[in-house]
Amino acid sequence: MPESTEEPRLPAASLVAFISRALTKVGLPDADAATVAGLMVQADLRGSDGHGIFRLPQYVRRIRAGGLNVTPQIRVVQEADAMALVDGDNGMGHLVMSRAAEVAVEKAKRSGIGWVGVRQSNHAGPAALYAMMPLKHDMIGIYMAVGSANHLPPWGGIDLLLSTNPIAYALPALEEPPLVLDMATTVAAYGKVKTKAQRGETMPEGWMIDYQGKPLTDPRRADEGFLLPIGEYKGYGLALIFGLLAGTLNGAAFGRYVVDFNRDDTTTTNTGHVIIALDVARFSPVESFKRGVDSIVRDMRASRRMEGVERILVPGEQSHAIWQERSANGVPVGPALRAELDKLAAALGIEPLA
Amino acid sequence: MPESTEEPRLPAASLVAFISRALTKVGLPDADAATVAGLMVQADLRGSDGHGIFRLPQYVRRIRAGGLNVTPQIRVVQEADAMALVDGDNGMGHLVMSRAAEVAVEKAKRSGIGWVGVRQSNHAGPAALYAMMPLKHDMIGIYMAVGSANHLPPWGGIDLLLSTNPIAYALPALEEPPLVLDMATTVAAYGKVKTKAQRGETMPEGWMIDYQGKPLTDPRRADEGFLLPIGEYKGYGLALIFGLLAGTLNGAAFGRYVVDFNRDDTTTTNTGHVIIALDVARFSPVESFKRGVDSIVRDMRASRRMEGVERILVPGEQSHAIWQERSANGVPVGPALRAELDKLAAALGIEPLA
Repeated sequence: MPESTEEPRLPAASLVAFISRALTKVGLPDADAATVAGLMVQADLRGSDGHGIFRLPQYVRRIRAGGLNVTPQIRVVQEADAMALVDGDNGMGHLVMSRAAEVAVEKAKRSGIGWVGVRQSNHAGPAALYAMMPLKHDMIGIYMAVGSANHLPPWGGIDLLLSTNPIAYALPALEEPPLVLDMATTVAAYGKVKTKAQRGETMPEGWMIDYQGKPLTDPRRADEGFLLPIGEYKGYGLALIFGLLAGTLNGAAFGRYVVDFNRDDTTTTNTGHVIIALDVARFSPVESFKRGVDSIVRDMRASRRMEGVERILVPGEQSHAIWQERSANGVPVGPALRAELDKLAAALGIEPLA
Repeated sequence: MPESTEEPRLPAASLVAFISRALTKVGLPDADAATVAGLMVQADLRGSDGHGIFRLPQYVRRIRAGGLNVTPQIRVVQEADAMALVDGDNGMGHLVMSRAAEVAVEKAKRSGIGWVGVRQSNHAGPAALYAMMPLKHDMIGIYMAVGSANHLPPWGGIDLLLSTNPIAYALPALEEPPLVLDMATTVAAYGKVKTKAQRGETMPEGWMIDYQGKPLTDPRRADEGFLLPIGEYKGYGLALIFGLLAGTLNGAAFGRYVVDFNRDDTTTTNTGHVIIALDVARFSPVESFKRGVDSIVRDMRASRRMEGVERILVPGEQSHAIWQERSANGVPVGPALRAELDKLAAALGIEPLA
């Protein structure tokens, strides 16, 4: 497991409490602050270090700059038996998406599937969190989003017109952990670049190139190049399609209208997402499907291996193991992040992370 | 456009007529033979040379061996407002999927979206054909399938437990051609390997590796290695998820239960697919969405380019151009393919391709 064992650990509950303090201080209602804090720390627990408490200073900055509505009226603006369009009223993405996932599950209960498009939302953290929400209803979840900053040109181009637009799928299993694939359409997600920069590490070749097409490995120079899509034109195609489905179709920003939320704290981002819930029971007895997933997972794991490969993994297996380990031992909070969070506590006049 | 200008051209209507003759001769009802022939030639017209008339000898071989039902009772076996499960009764995949797409569109008209799972089907040609079916109803189409032979191991493994499980998305535009992304989850689809072998060409590095991890570029040695997934573990993850959604969830074959239809003409393949139709009008005025797609497409095309790049493409643009060109000038049928089709005509006692 890729843990920096030197980093001090803090219990998840402390992180949740700290995030809640910070968010209520800047105006979120208690219940909403708790919901957002819980989801942000789920990201940390699952090893999505670029999407958890790491993002708190940025969220607070945007809220204090007036770029985000702390008391949004999140509502369904259009609906049919199996779809809905949710307007997030510029609220925290975590709140908007939690509501959208509920609507998708309700629709799927009635009609077999619920497809919910979302506009006027904001950055919501890792895709997996939302794809996993239907799981407890024995449903399959699928999530797509327009990323919150453009770091990808069309294939062959150099203008940053696309984000890493991610997709996540979550499928329930019986004895195995759920199968959860959460992937950017780029080789690396931009959050990973930011984490590398914060840790003073270099990036492997293949993550980014500069405008002359040369490999870019210094994450502090990220502005001088762009991310590479998976499978070349295929990843570009996926980023484009997910952007149209999560953005354009919902009346959310996509393409040159995407606000770079890393540089701009005030302009409404109008972030778009899609959450789909699919009711397994409509297709197959639930236990039989879950047993089928287990069986496929075990067949993959039992494959003969290439030389040097110790274990065959399935999507979500590493995140699940990290989640178990961090739930038991706490979330690593390195010195750089710790310093930022202490600075934030001082600026807000709240009790620091303990 | 990647055309071999030396190859003789034949009008699409001749190909359709020839395929219809062959399929009725082996027992398909006239109307069904015409449907399949029309779709196969659409594949040729769009440049999917590995999925059109090229496949006819194989289809005929399977039908004559009793591996495919020429008079299937295709029926909806489970349904809800927005989903259905279709059993193809081991019929030609083209027929089963045409019916499934109709059901998906009906469901979407009523409920906003229709998700239709399919089992007991067969190879159906290019994914794009089915994803595009909802377009004329101003709907978005999404298609997934379990491929008809395993050529991909789990990432890090060497057992061929996965196929190139493709996905296709089709989105309507206003003045631009529809946006159509049709992609295998491997760097190259296996159909492309077969086409290379038939033409006596070598494959570029990156398509396949052998069991020792060395590049494999001779398509005649395809049995000695496997295809590479896009984005390494990401493409593997997508192939796995699409297989579970199109296969396991529908009670169709996936993983080690996939029948290699290139080697086995008699065993029922129990091929699984998914077709989704999403009604644009439920989200946005149709013309406004289509205008939005046009605008995004034009923004991509207008991007500044990397040195040496002549034109920025969007998904489906090349296939659309090939379709226009071949509709006007005919479909290229090279000498090797022509010889095979003449042999088939003689064996069936039907009039050859004219």
